[in-house]
Amino acid sequence: MSEGLSYAIIGSGAVGIYHGGLLARAGRTVHFLMRSDAHHVREHGLKVESKDGDYHLHDVNVWQDPAAIPPVDVTVVAVKTTANDQLRQLLCGATRDGGVVLMAQNGLDPEAAAAAVVGPERVYGGGYFLCSNKVGPGHIAHLDYGTLAFGKYRPPGAPEQGITEMVQRLEDDMRAAKIDARAVENLPAARWKKLVWNIPFNGLSVVLDAATDELLERAEPLVRSLMRETVAAARACGTELGDEAIEGMIAHTRKMTPYDSSMRLDWKAGRPMEVEAIFGQPVRAAAAAGADVPRIEMLYRQLTYLNR
Amino acid sequence: MSEGLSYAIIGSGAVGIYHGGLLARAGRTVHFLMRSDAHHVREHGLKVESKDGDYHLHDVNVWQDPAAIPPVDVTVVAVKTTANDQLRQLLCGATRDGGVVLMAQNGLDPEAAAAAVVGPERVYGGGYFLCSNKVGPGHIAHLDYGTLAFGKYRPPGAPEQGITEMVQRLEDDMRAAKIDARAVENLPAARWKKLVWNIPFNGLSVVLDAATDELLERAEPLVRSLMRETVAAARACGTELGDEAIEGMIAHTRKMTPYDSSMRLDWKAGRPMEVEAIFGQPVRAAAAAGADVPRIEMLYRQLTYLNR
Repeated sequence: MSEGLSYAIIGSGAVGIYHGGLLARAGRTVHFLMRSDAHHVREHGLKVESKDGDYHLHDVNVWQDPAAIPPVDVTVVAVKTTANDQLRQLLCGATRDGGVVLMAQNGLDPEAAAAAVVGPERVYGGGYFLCSNKVGPGHIAHLDYGTLAFGKYRPPGAPEQGITEMVQRLEDDMRAAKIDARAVENLPAARWKKLVWNIPFNGLSVVLDAATDELLERAEPLVRSLMRETVAAARACGTELGDEAIEGMIAHTRKMTPYDSSMRLDWKAGRPMEVEAIFGQPVRAAAAAGADVPRIEMLYRQLTYLNR
Repeated sequence: MSEGLSYAIIGSGAVGIYHGGLLARAGRTVHFLMRSDAHHVREHGLKVESKDGDYHLHDVNVWQDPAAIPPVDVTVVAVKTTANDQLRQLLCGATRDGGVVLMAQNGLDPEAAAAAVVGPERVYGGGYFLCSNKVGPGHIAHLDYGTLAFGKYRPPGAPEQGITEMVQRLEDDMRAAKIDARAVENLPAARWKKLVWNIPFNGLSVVLDAATDELLERAEPLVRSLMRETVAAARACGTELGDEAIEGMIAHTRKMTPYDSSMRLDWKAGRPMEVEAIFGQPVRAAAAAGADVPRIEMLYRQLTYLNR
């Protein structure tokens, strides 16, 4: 292990290429599962345009059949949550000798889907705060930010998991590859914190057909009312984020390059949107905890309508 | 007055032509204020395709300058509420010898704008429940319904106005012209009742880009949650509509020919939407009465964003 961990990256979108690209550039063994991009990347490699410096990777390990991926230490799931019903098949090769799964996805509880396949003990999760767009096959533009808050999966009702040995090892290995990974003791708190951004900005960017800067400029009270409901829902579910979560996200977004959220890009491209992960799961968790979230619920229903 | 009342119709849209057309067909003196349609209607008359029978009117009294309209008994204001800042000029000719003003507009309180011009005693208001679309200059298609619930203006804090002598006379005169006019004792109650339809169907038809049948089929819980908030807001403001208002509107809409709301037509055509009349006024009235209407308020903010 002195050579670093080995990785499989499931999903070659804006997150998968960002994360796997940095690991491969740092010399880690990285296997990429790709579908439509496979042929192009075998021939032309991966191309990353980044605010931190552009790079191009040749000789990328590309697999089209998930069962053929060699077993690795860490399988990073970077497909959209809308593909999580295929997780058993997607994980079958890379995780067959053990190894852990890191769910680098949106939503409140994407880890539950992985836990159902490999058991909760092997599951980790994290949310990227990252402005990265796919601009072509095997080609991304990294515009801004790039922080991965991650931790051990905490099944419903279980106590905080803390910074386990494996969490620390994952953090060290990813940081050595220039990934701004930040281990957290309390994964649900990190998930709720990201939802404070995702709920207003993903949801409204679709319903109002607007970029982040337009929403801040012309609908900030609406953004803030959704953020306040998200903080209240988190509190009812046992996570106290505090008002600084709202002010922090507003300030971050104000400094951000104007940006199309991942949900808006999915919507424009006619792909399924992550409505259940980002809205359905929090609405149901809030209801179970007795919290009233009429605005989030309304946005959830609007997006469900639009998500044909 | 045995010959019936004389009328001016301010605004030659789907409501103005429907209302004024029936009056003119019945032999009333009717003056139409028109802008872009004036030349066409002088030459070709008014054309009404209606589920109750098509008709064509020649020799229509068309005016382009509101100051030139002869004084009449009843001035019917059928422009969009977004034009109410021009009311003083629009009313100056037709109302100069007295006569009453009937605000046939959407919203909770469009009468206030007329009261500011001619004084509250001369103001009446009514909401059409009508599926009528303008299909060309001086030309409408009347698809369904056609009921005008109208009554005497009730200024804020004033008691119910009841069926005054003039209200009865207006009802008789309009009914004789085959207008399904229904006098109400309590105009705010009629206004709130119409908002039970307008708030969900006008608002969601724009935000979700959907016709009435699509909303009922795929977003009925959302429609109902907005209707419940509207009923609760009305209650806080002193009007008890009861749950039958909701069931009645749902049943009516289910039987309705699938329909683009007036707000959606405005939106598609790039015209200003009646966001303040239909959403801003009720939200402010609810807030003043201490009622919490988070869903209506959110829809109001979304529409304000879209209403560029």
